[in-house]
Amino acid sequence: MNPDFNQLDFSKLNGLVTAVIQDHATARVLMVGFMNEEAFRKTVETGYATFFSRSRNKLWLKGESSGHILVVKNIATDCDLDALLIQVEALGPGVCHEGYQSCFFRQLDQGEWKESEPRAYDPAAVYGSKPGSKS
Amino acid sequence: MNPDFNQLDFSKLNGLVTAVIQDHATARVLMVGFMNEEAFRKTVETGYATFFSRSRNKLWLKGESSGHILVVKNIATDCDLDALLIQVEALGPGVCHEGYQSCFFRQLDQGEWKESEPRAYDPAAVYGSKPGSKS
Repeated sequence: MNPDFNQLDFSKLNGLVTAVIQDHATARVLMVGFMNEEAFRKTVETGYATFFSRSRNKLWLKGESSGHILVVKNIATDCDLDALLIQVEALGPGVCHEGYQSCFFRQLDQGEWKESEPRAYDPAAVYGSKPGSKS
Repeated sequence: MNPDFNQLDFSKLNGLVTAVIQDHATARVLMVGFMNEEAFRKTVETGYATFFSRSRNKLWLKGESSGHILVVKNIATDCDLDALLIQVEALGPGVCHEGYQSCFFRQLDQGEWKESEPRAYDPAAVYGSKPGSKS
């Protein structure tokens, strides 16, 4: 493993860096997740975006249950080395576990959050109703 | 203030939400910052992106010293209501205090972070050499 990997600054968020996921073709921002050093290493080594789930306190291969894998095309980091911008090809109709193409499906409109797009798929058909399996 | 504002979940990052800043015209991701409730309120009310600086522990109007203001065009939030995607018109040649158009000016290339674009301006000419004034 190249020592450059260790240049990332995981100290500001208790061992995590922010990871912005962007569609490599459309440039749409699809989701924001967090990676610890192991998740980042897995992401680089496998080519599939892998996060650290703060709610489940474990590594989380995006798409492990849904099949909606994020295939890494490019990885950039910012001036402070504490955030990642990962451009991906998103397999499947949507990244959001609620059924939308992007997790950012609500826009602020006159002081209220309003859905700004229709669902791309039925999340119940993909995830079922099991709690904690929505990845 | 509309009560919908309070739907944002500031609890996961000790009072902050992640804010991804994207150029509204080119869709380039320019930077990632953090907002507390007051910074978010200021951003909405003024129309200029305002962050909470974790290093300086205070509100930070982006561009307050450089003039490189981020004019808000659209605000979206994600399924978990703990991240914001803010599309902006970025005034000035670059968002990054190191002189680049975007803070994400380094790409992972064979295990090393490499600069992937030239500087857009000379940061010393804009910020001088005063520590803590690079906004």
